[in-house]
Amino acid sequence: MNDADLPKSRRALLLVDFINPLDFPGAEDLAPSALIAAKAAAKLAMAARENSIPVIYANDNFGLWRSDFAAMVKRLEKGRGESAQIVRLMRPRQGDLTILKPMHSAFFGSPLDIVLEKMGVRSIVLAGLATDICIQLTAADAFLRSLKVHVPPECTAAESEVKKRNALIYMRDILKCDIRPASI
Amino acid sequence: MNDADLPKSRRALLLVDFINPLDFPGAEDLAPSALIAAKAAAKLAMAARENSIPVIYANDNFGLWRSDFAAMVKRLEKGRGESAQIVRLMRPRQGDLTILKPMHSAFFGSPLDIVLEKMGVRSIVLAGLATDICIQLTAADAFLRSLKVHVPPECTAAESEVKKRNALIYMRDILKCDIRPASI
Amino acid sequence: MNDADLPKSRRALLLVDFINPLDFPGAEDLAPSALIAAKAAAKLAMAARENSIPVIYANDNFGLWRSDFAAMVKRLEKGRGESAQIVRLMRPRQGDLTILKPMHSAFFGSPLDIVLEKMGVRSIVLAGLATDICIQLTAADAFLRSLKVHVPPECTAAESEVKKRNALIYMRDILKCDIRPASI
Amino acid sequence: MNDADLPKSRRALLLVDFINPLDFPGAEDLAPSALIAAKAAAKLAMAARENSIPVIYANDNFGLWRSDFAAMVKRLEKGRGESAQIVRLMRPRQGDLTILKPMHSAFFGSPLDIVLEKMGVRSIVLAGLATDICIQLTAADAFLRSLKVHVPPECTAAESEVKKRNALIYMRDILKCDIRPASI
Repeated sequence: MNDADLPKSRRALLLVDFINPLDFPGAEDLAPSALIAAKAAAKLAMAARENSIPVIYANDNFGLWRSDFAAMVKRLEKGRGESAQIVRLMRPRQGDLTILKPMHSAFFGSPLDIVLEKMGVRSIVLAGLATDICIQLTAADAFLRSLKVHVPPECTAAESEVKKRNALIYMRDILKCDIRPASI
Repeated sequence: MNDADLPKSRRALLLVDFINPLDFPGAEDLAPSALIAAKAAAKLAMAARENSIPVIYANDNFGLWRSDFAAMVKRLEKGRGESAQIVRLMRPRQGDLTILKPMHSAFFGSPLDIVLEKMGVRSIVLAGLATDICIQLTAADAFLRSLKVHVPPECTAAESEVKKRNALIYMRDILKCDIRPASI
Repeated sequence: MNDADLPKSRRALLLVDFINPLDFPGAEDLAPSALIAAKAAAKLAMAARENSIPVIYANDNFGLWRSDFAAMVKRLEKGRGESAQIVRLMRPRQGDLTILKPMHSAFFGSPLDIVLEKMGVRSIVLAGLATDICIQLTAADAFLRSLKVHVPPECTAAESEVKKRNALIYMRDILKCDIRPASI
Repeated sequence: MNDADLPKSRRALLLVDFINPLDFPGAEDLAPSALIAAKAAAKLAMAARENSIPVIYANDNFGLWRSDFAAMVKRLEKGRGESAQIVRLMRPRQGDLTILKPMHSAFFGSPLDIVLEKMGVRSIVLAGLATDICIQLTAADAFLRSLKVHVPPECTAAESEVKKRNALIYMRDILKCDIRPASI
């Protein structure tokens, strides 16, 4: 409960489920565009760190309740294919925060509310996988909490371009997200 | 969201903040009785594991948002005094679960609700530090969720015997907890 | 906290925002199909009551924090147009439950979790306005809570057929809802 | 979701369960001191209204899920004994807010978080029944949310003076509440 460790910032970058085994049904459709999105998001994360904007990994544990995030990063980066390539691009840096996202929305059953409140964050940039599932459900919960949300389309990916586009339109029209490209 | 990793059980043992630097103001009053409670709770945890009752570490990160639980265990067990002795007694075993408790109640901003629901737990045994703070506030949230709660007095400690006794009476009378000694 | 008043049931019908001034921007596009959906939902509600399936009104207060639901029903049914017609069709009956839905999802900041838990409900039928906003966001929260959700398409309406269809597809494919017509 | 109806204020007065049938076991021990507390709280509420500090009734429905607050006020004020006397003293005025408190803490399963956030409230004054149950559990949840809490002792009552004093000491020492008499 000593929060000296948490930076103060009006804005934060949330990286959702990039650290990912990509071994679920349909992952083969997601993997190539996930890698492209990870490249854009990795650049965005570097820019955020340079501008003292906190970078928060909100990541599923993929059912491994007895593992931890650092162990998952180490295990996956030694793997093959897009999963390992993405992990190598997106490896957390000194000073980044990581929170466990036990369900699809990064807010549900996680300390995200507490962390954002303690940091003074009112505006989040959302990047990650997949646009129409964990990104959209996280954006919905952010919307219910009156947070400003920016979802740069080049930093997120879905199993198809149609699913991605529909999710972006939904987030723009219903959840009041900014869906223009990133420019931190 | 694959939950194959989570055991099914009606009952679980929750170990609260035993993994603890014990370096806050007042910790010197808590430490000796904390060590005694840890010895009783370590036995209880072994009995729970033998009876296939899940053991869940619900532990504060003590403000170190960039650390993780495994790293904290390693760091503290190399330390000195009661903090290190307790960590050596209470080291998590293969199969135990750990969840981050960002605030005093183990339910607030944590995946505890989700984990208990997925395991089918309806009854929890609460052990840990300190009786009148994190234990009592966790018991209050369990009470609001209609969970059965058992707080064995020998497995918990407070800064004074009066504080501990008052907390136990409150949990028994208002929060409807069982406060008899453990007998898993 | 005496819950003698709450029926026990595995299933419940949730009626979302039918009691509605329909005076927001875009409401004129929603009103005609809302009236058609209300006719189907009113039949469904009668069938539910006959089968002892609890009917729960989860309704916005439309910013009138100092009003209550009964007063809103009385005021709107004296009005004009589809709003009043719908209220007259959907007026709550003896034994129905009403909960205030302060935001778009019926679960957010409401007692819905508590009420469903106390009644033993594991499966909900969702009807109401608008398919792509409050219905979809309620379905998302139900999905995060592992509830079974049925959204009969004839009992819900959106501002356009495209929005309605996209929302139904999303709820079926991502949120694992049943979207077949009702048959209580 | 139109919030024009909600005043802006850094501070709010929360009146907990004064509107109360006082017919539960032990209520006869609470009733006389509840009436004394209600007199002080009624004065405090008048002062709050004069100073544009929002007055929020956070009240149990006492299991009557099919009733509403206005109906309960009307029914109870026609009753007898302290229950009716308190209701007549504490009747809500034009401009007051009311929220349903389905469980002991006014935050649990209620829109209180949303309402306080929308009003900009960071500091609450807590009055009501009973000191060691609903007041203390509400204070605990306010503490977890980093709200400043003031519990004027003359505006709250418990079944015994010992229970009241212990609860006040707990709120002061553990939950960091101000427990000095009121002076709005």
